[in-house]
Amino acid sequence: MTLKIYTAGPEVFLANAREVMAAKTALCRKYGFDAICPGDLDIPPAETMKAFGLAISRVDEDMMDSADAVIANLTPFRGLAADVGTAFELGYMCAQGKLVAAYTNVTEDHYQRTLAYYGGQISTDAGGYKRGPDGLSLEDFDMIDNLMLHGGVERRGGAVVVHKAADDALYTDLTGFEACLKALAEQIRHQSRDEGRRPEDLDASNDD
Amino acid sequence: MTLKIYTAGPEVFLANAREVMAAKTALCRKYGFDAICPGDLDIPPAETMKAFGLAISRVDEDMMDSADAVIANLTPFRGLAADVGTAFELGYMCAQGKLVAAYTNVTEDHYQRTLAYYGGQISTDAGGYKRGPDGLSLEDFDMIDNLMLHGGVERRGGAVVVHKAADDALYTDLTGFEACLKALAEQIRHQSRDEGRRPEDLDASNDD
Repeated sequence: MTLKIYTAGPEVFLANAREVMAAKTALCRKYGFDAICPGDLDIPPAETMKAFGLAISRVDEDMMDSADAVIANLTPFRGLAADVGTAFELGYMCAQGKLVAAYTNVTEDHYQRTLAYYGGQISTDAGGYKRGPDGLSLEDFDMIDNLMLHGGVERRGGAVVVHKAADDALYTDLTGFEACLKALAEQIRHQSRDEGRRPEDLDASNDD
Repeated sequence: MTLKIYTAGPEVFLANAREVMAAKTALCRKYGFDAICPGDLDIPPAETMKAFGLAISRVDEDMMDSADAVIANLTPFRGLAADVGTAFELGYMCAQGKLVAAYTNVTEDHYQRTLAYYGGQISTDAGGYKRGPDGLSLEDFDMIDNLMLHGGVERRGGAVVVHKAADDALYTDLTGFEACLKALAEQIRHQSRDEGRRPEDLDASNDD
């Protein structure tokens, strides 16, 4: 059966979202996977904006339930951290024991971005915690984002890919996405080897 | 058995995090619930910051796995959206079919905050989507945050509580948290009624 990958990320908010989703779908195919992209389905109109939003929430959760894996685009979105919708979806897939991978298109890590957010005005408290002028502590864990996100992926053996995209391709550069696909393909080959099957039997492009 | 509630929120970053967690724990007790708070356990030192972060990720996931419900503090954190760690945790608990509730301590909804982020410089494209100067579309769904978060809670029958906290109590005001506790208690009473049991048998404070 072909592995189905849910493509989580803030590119759904782009004017050319469908084009980016099509490119992600094509890349998934190249590695023998199927893509399940939020925004692929047309959501019927609803009586209120709230009802419409709830309908999208249901469709996206259904898509995740039917997927075997997620690749989460954790590139910072409207601020220093990942898109919260993507963070929700990554947590949702981690809880289901699905295969997980993540990428970011900026090279500054979570700590460096938080430091920049505070303009470098950091102090260290008596307990050794680094804090901003607002008293909030900074995570300094050599991670691309909050430890639940980065840790959730890395602890499950998933790839965490960092790639520097051009400013005008922050959400469209798919280098990191493709690296995640390669890592997933490799992970599946290893798993099948562990199960005593020949890796070539598992070439995803030939198995359905 | 006493319902165990995982208390997700950015208050873990406060200098007085333990004090806030103790107050949340006391409120949970008042409604007959047990609190499971991230940061409650001491994590042993690790060789690297990365390893320490991964250890916290594991402990927090274990705590969620052992909890029956989550109350997520979705108050905006270092920007216009909720804390991404909290978003991950909310998704994690939604996927497990746990009871969910959320609150925010600001009254501006997600759309209003995004509008402010763009300084009101919004245009409407040919497809009817509102977009910022960077071309990214704005969600306008009458929701407190990204539709996956708000929708994930509301679609499960969970409370979404909005309360205006004072500026200096943005992460410590527990009015919304207590409203979520009341809603959870009510939800449990209804569920038990649906199951044909007398609600008074289910008074959480008497059932273990």
